[in-house]
Amino acid sequence: MIPKTALTLSGDRLATVYKLLGDEELARTKANAICIEQTVEFPANLITDDDIRGKIFGQIESFERVDEAHFEAKISYAIESSGFELTQLLNLIFGNSSIKPGIRVERLELPESLLQAFKGPRFGRNGLRKYLGVEKRPILCTALKPMGLSAKSLADYAYQFALGGIDMIKDDHGLADQSFSPFEERVELCAAAVARANAETGFKSIYIPNLTAPADQMLRKAHFAKKAGAGGLMISPGLAGFDIMRQIVDEDKIALPILSHPAFQGSFVINPDSGISHHALFGQFARLAGADATIFPNHGGRFSFSKEECQSIVNGTEVEMSHLKPIFPAPGGGMSLDRLKEMREFYGNEVIYLIGGDLHSYSDDLIDNSRRFRKIVNNSNA
Amino acid sequence: MIPKTALTLSGDRLATVYKLLGDEELARTKANAICIEQTVEFPANLITDDDIRGKIFGQIESFERVDEAHFEAKISYAIESSGFELTQLLNLIFGNSSIKPGIRVERLELPESLLQAFKGPRFGRNGLRKYLGVEKRPILCTALKPMGLSAKSLADYAYQFALGGIDMIKDDHGLADQSFSPFEERVELCAAAVARANAETGFKSIYIPNLTAPADQMLRKAHFAKKAGAGGLMISPGLAGFDIMRQIVDEDKIALPILSHPAFQGSFVINPDSGISHHALFGQFARLAGADATIFPNHGGRFSFSKEECQSIVNGTEVEMSHLKPIFPAPGGGMSLDRLKEMREFYGNEVIYLIGGDLHSYSDDLIDNSRRFRKIVNNSNA
Repeated sequence: MIPKTALTLSGDRLATVYKLLGDEELARTKANAICIEQTVEFPANLITDDDIRGKIFGQIESFERVDEAHFEAKISYAIESSGFELTQLLNLIFGNSSIKPGIRVERLELPESLLQAFKGPRFGRNGLRKYLGVEKRPILCTALKPMGLSAKSLADYAYQFALGGIDMIKDDHGLADQSFSPFEERVELCAAAVARANAETGFKSIYIPNLTAPADQMLRKAHFAKKAGAGGLMISPGLAGFDIMRQIVDEDKIALPILSHPAFQGSFVINPDSGISHHALFGQFARLAGADATIFPNHGGRFSFSKEECQSIVNGTEVEMSHLKPIFPAPGGGMSLDRLKEMREFYGNEVIYLIGGDLHSYSDDLIDNSRRFRKIVNNSNA
Repeated sequence: MIPKTALTLSGDRLATVYKLLGDEELARTKANAICIEQTVEFPANLITDDDIRGKIFGQIESFERVDEAHFEAKISYAIESSGFELTQLLNLIFGNSSIKPGIRVERLELPESLLQAFKGPRFGRNGLRKYLGVEKRPILCTALKPMGLSAKSLADYAYQFALGGIDMIKDDHGLADQSFSPFEERVELCAAAVARANAETGFKSIYIPNLTAPADQMLRKAHFAKKAGAGGLMISPGLAGFDIMRQIVDEDKIALPILSHPAFQGSFVINPDSGISHHALFGQFARLAGADATIFPNHGGRFSFSKEECQSIVNGTEVEMSHLKPIFPAPGGGMSLDRLKEMREFYGNEVIYLIGGDLHSYSDDLIDNSRRFRKIVNNSNA
């Protein structure tokens, strides 16, 4: 028997909606197990203390059938159990239950009293538009690649893309700090190349280095990039950890727009009955960690996301989360200029078009290919 | 057409064995796609440079059927593409391919020339035995919980467990830095309680705080714990990021044994046809990040791992990885004293028995329950 406590908690609770695979009995068993597993992890019958039972235990707020094979349970937790820290919040929502089959995090419902602890995206959609000087049209983005090119060759590409009017020119996510293109050399050359092009065109293109680095180098490299003239940063929270992204976002002396890349996160979403929904992972979690745009593979590209899944990501980027700003969906993963019309119909204006390798496929003239990209977007905007 | 390069690489390659779902044609298509997706992410036909094609592209080293529905492809990459950094190594192995269905990382084969970049576990099995003064028998571990108790109550438990002869007394992974049990208060009280018990018994029990904290507090809190007398640290790489664990392990002024906890990592292993194998995730990756012991849910507990999966984790903890020491498997997740005999048969001596809530279930006398645990292990060792 555990000792009595006298917990003074606010009474505010955060909720997670879990999708549970199984018939009603199995789904109820899973919901009840989550209430314990995500909190006390203790034989419930040995907990006699009213405060822990009533305040710390997860509580099933609703339970309903969603289709023949699934139920949804909304389970709430004391906001204090999160410690008001992103790492523990992730843990509270899905730490051990991630290891159980047939449980998927669908949506987060986080009260203002918890969200106060998170600054969220520094720019968000409106801020990024203002930063780039793009009023209404979709934003253009491309990637510097392939891996193996020298920093100088990548900077040459960056220059051409910027001359051609691409708004955001980012490193491919495979560019880290390899001998063939060291981070600092690449960042300096690419940022300078884009600045040179901007001076010629009057556009405001930005260069966005990929920041995949050892934990103890992330902040230093982010500062370096800022100083070298980078216009944003790309971070893969699956590689770095969500909270390192949050730390960099919150650093006032960096204050650059942040692209979130899905590398190493696929296992969370790839199976519909486990992991985390596209909506929550690429939308809500990305905003909690402060991303201004969330990259994901568009339907019909090299990856397998469905239209519905892509739509759910869009929803996650703009669903009400108190002061956490809506962010841009940035669908990519094998997109081409041929897809722009259809993407415009699907995503509307509030989107970043990420077209990478395809921009090399029309001709060897990257400036011209980029102008073509820009022109299609400008025209469809008319 | 991309520019010509003149890559000067070592020629050494690391390999990953992927399990691919599908018939032979589909599996081959997947293997070929991985070679591109994990490296250049670029239309292969546009890459005419011999160096990038020959050195940077992933290369299929072997391809064979493993059962009716699966093939295994061993794919190699230039070690330089990893940047000799853990974050980029994870990315190179599985960054974007994690987002494709029917691809699972089974095993890593990393050459000495790459592994030199990683110190790996500081203690490993032998080092941890020496540190604890436990020669041959399995090591005993329990957890301080439930969430909601005060630091003082948890320290009282720690004292009793230590009096009863438990080697490792760790925080539950849900204890972070919550108002009801603040990290620093808890660490100081629990470390002192265990030291007091050790002075009475002559045993060497250690207290292992759970270190789930914002990225920018991890190192500071690890130092705090060391100074306060903690005997180890528990870190969840799924929450913190693998490389933060590596950073803390490599810090000579901390130099404490590290337990890896699987929180938020379940989505990688829970579906057999995607993600990462138990062997690689809880064994090989944990060692790359420097864990000395890897916690996972034993078969037949509250979780769903099979005997085979648990055995594969054991294999991953000891498979040859150059100077990276073998580490302890620490099966838990609903274990009880009744299971010890069978666990001994399954795991042998090279194991940490993690028994948490069950230790509270025999009586309210935790000292006695702990002695019972110790006695069973001592006797079965005879």
